[in-house]
Amino acid sequence: MQTKNQVRVIIPATTANCGPGFDTLGIACSLYNEIELELTDSRNLTDIKVLGEGSGNLPVNSRNLVLRSVRAVLDKAEFGETGVRLILRNNIPLSRGLGSSSAAIVGGLVAANAIIGNPFNKDILLDMATRLEGHPDNVAPALHGGFTISVQQEQRVTCLRLPLPSELRLVVCIPDFGLSTRKAREAIPGSVTHKDAVYNVGRTALLVGAIASGRLEYLSDALVDKLHQPYRAALIPGMLDVFEAGREAGALGVVMSGAGPSLMAYVVENEETVGEAMVKAFAKHKISSRYLSLEVDYNGARITDPA
Amino acid sequence: MQTKNQVRVIIPATTANCGPGFDTLGIACSLYNEIELELTDSRNLTDIKVLGEGSGNLPVNSRNLVLRSVRAVLDKAEFGETGVRLILRNNIPLSRGLGSSSAAIVGGLVAANAIIGNPFNKDILLDMATRLEGHPDNVAPALHGGFTISVQQEQRVTCLRLPLPSELRLVVCIPDFGLSTRKAREAIPGSVTHKDAVYNVGRTALLVGAIASGRLEYLSDALVDKLHQPYRAALIPGMLDVFEAGREAGALGVVMSGAGPSLMAYVVENEETVGEAMVKAFAKHKISSRYLSLEVDYNGARITDPA
Repeated sequence: MQTKNQVRVIIPATTANCGPGFDTLGIACSLYNEIELELTDSRNLTDIKVLGEGSGNLPVNSRNLVLRSVRAVLDKAEFGETGVRLILRNNIPLSRGLGSSSAAIVGGLVAANAIIGNPFNKDILLDMATRLEGHPDNVAPALHGGFTISVQQEQRVTCLRLPLPSELRLVVCIPDFGLSTRKAREAIPGSVTHKDAVYNVGRTALLVGAIASGRLEYLSDALVDKLHQPYRAALIPGMLDVFEAGREAGALGVVMSGAGPSLMAYVVENEETVGEAMVKAFAKHKISSRYLSLEVDYNGARITDPA
Repeated sequence: MQTKNQVRVIIPATTANCGPGFDTLGIACSLYNEIELELTDSRNLTDIKVLGEGSGNLPVNSRNLVLRSVRAVLDKAEFGETGVRLILRNNIPLSRGLGSSSAAIVGGLVAANAIIGNPFNKDILLDMATRLEGHPDNVAPALHGGFTISVQQEQRVTCLRLPLPSELRLVVCIPDFGLSTRKAREAIPGSVTHKDAVYNVGRTALLVGAIASGRLEYLSDALVDKLHQPYRAALIPGMLDVFEAGREAGALGVVMSGAGPSLMAYVVENEETVGEAMVKAFAKHKISSRYLSLEVDYNGARITDPA
């Protein structure tokens, strides 16, 4: 294997669920973390520097998710002992429903795979990422970019990547509080009505069909949900008002990003108007927030030249 | 309005649900009913002749579904009193999950609309058909042809039609007994686990994505279901064995057609082998059946020249 000493990877943020597509759909967005990985001769060395989001909070020891992902690849490749230096430049906010942990996992896997000569293909990396994350819906777009449909059976992940209409933009409104995925998952009931299940089946079909065919006029009917958002609304004060404000300002639809609390508007124009309307609606509920106008990322995690 | 005296319409059979897409997805198939409609001056005359499937069973009075659909259009258009003559040449078997009632409704609507100069567009006809049928998943492909995604909210139906990969063929195995849609609906529980709901959301997304992108290799993972087939299996002796036999013979997947009892194999080759394997598997359960090798119908209901 052709190994390098150092690699740099950038990894996109991701928005999962996309309304009706719970644990299935995801889109990669133009907001990036950067990871610099260096393998060293000092076998026991682990040196992790976190810059930006999560600096001072994220663990810099063996519990660090990027490091665990790097080690997973090195172990699988039977690379042997090595020291690891990591510099993490984080722009994706933590616990906001924007896939920061998936970016950490995918970034660690891709960086480690690249530094030892890419022994593993993307299918294998996706399986590894899904095992580390628990669900494929964020790791798949973080790895592949674009719009992904992922389903899991036993240990195997099936992932289909589809092109997106180029005019689609995403405006994410990020409130000033975190929400743990665990807490957001606990809000979801063990059973639902058959009617609600079928409701989401229909809207998911419409969403995938609309995206695949570029018929964005169908998004307003598709970007709705009865399987998770209603149960999580109580965890995000003002959520429904922010949805409405975004739609009234011209968004095709507004949904929770992943498990929240960030809320994602799908737009083709008027990004600023939509973003400002959402921030204002949150403010009425005494929630301070900011918005970012994002594009779809079509590349997924990728190696860039080391600094 | 430009009216005619007589029109002839052919209407395709349809297969709904398509595995995971309960009450949402449908495909039109190359098996057709034909309706000849004539308006007469004898105001109270209703003369209905049924040939082929349903002859001797289907009502030939005011309860006839084609006639009710014809009358619905004439009433909506305020056409005034008129006598109606109908000749129904039926090839779609009844109560087999192949959309015979949707074909009757759509055929009646399209014929009546055409004979009075097409005052109503397809969106209006779809709403009318859905009200008469109760669900849009069969009437949408019967009207539009091809592969349709339909969702209903209040009285409004949203329908997106997608192209299908041209190599896709359908082999339907039709057992020798009928199953009423009502009975098949009663088998479905009022609630399901959240996990099963999400299972179908994922497979529906994959199915729509696979069809839209022509990636038929994804169909085997997509043509599965946990929202209706498991509950209806008891109504169709040998169903799971027929599924397996079809797949082993080369089908990409096998699912119930609509509410059954017909079972539909999705294939790109070996239609005969698949069909024969399915008939043989039914026979092991003492169910006699036949199979038809069908193509996708891309046109939907359409006017042909009167005889």
